[in-house]
Amino acid sequence: MARVVVDVMLKPEILDPQGQAVANALPRLDVTDVTSVRIGRRIELEFSGDADLDRVREIADKLLANPVIEDFTIHAGEQVKA
Amino acid sequence: MARVVVDVMLKPEILDPQGQAVANALPRLDVTDVTSVRIGRRIELEFSGDADLDRVREIADKLLANPVIEDFTIHAGEQVKA
Repeated sequence: MARVVVDVMLKPEILDPQGQAVANALPRLDVTDVTSVRIGRRIELEFSGDADLDRVREIADKLLANPVIEDFTIHAGEQVKA
Repeated sequence: MARVVVDVMLKPEILDPQGQAVANALPRLDVTDVTSVRIGRRIELEFSGDADLDRVREIADKLLANPVIEDFTIHAGEQVKA
């Protein structure tokens, strides 16, 4: 079994109101040295065999991310004991 | 500037309908070797100075994750050029 992680984040130029809300709440926890909060999605895919990364790229592009406003990165390699 | 990433995922025993929906859609892309899809959040925090990881743990616990149903992991170290 192989695990592939796809991280999907809003492109830097796209406003992130969810992250902004968290940033605005931080002073309530006395945290004042955080300059930016961005919130995205982390998707963990588990494959029964080896993962085909070209396939993962297609899945991310068509199903997991909206390429107009989001970027994704793929992390492979974590071997999972069955 | 330091960047800290907090990954928040549902605990393994909690049902993930969003991931299930993606898993159910995969055969439409002719992908049949994915056994599990789990979807969580990736939060990127940027600090003006060095990041205090105990502080980040407190932020994650109180603000970013719901410890009843979610686990979080903290990745530090990415140095960001200002």
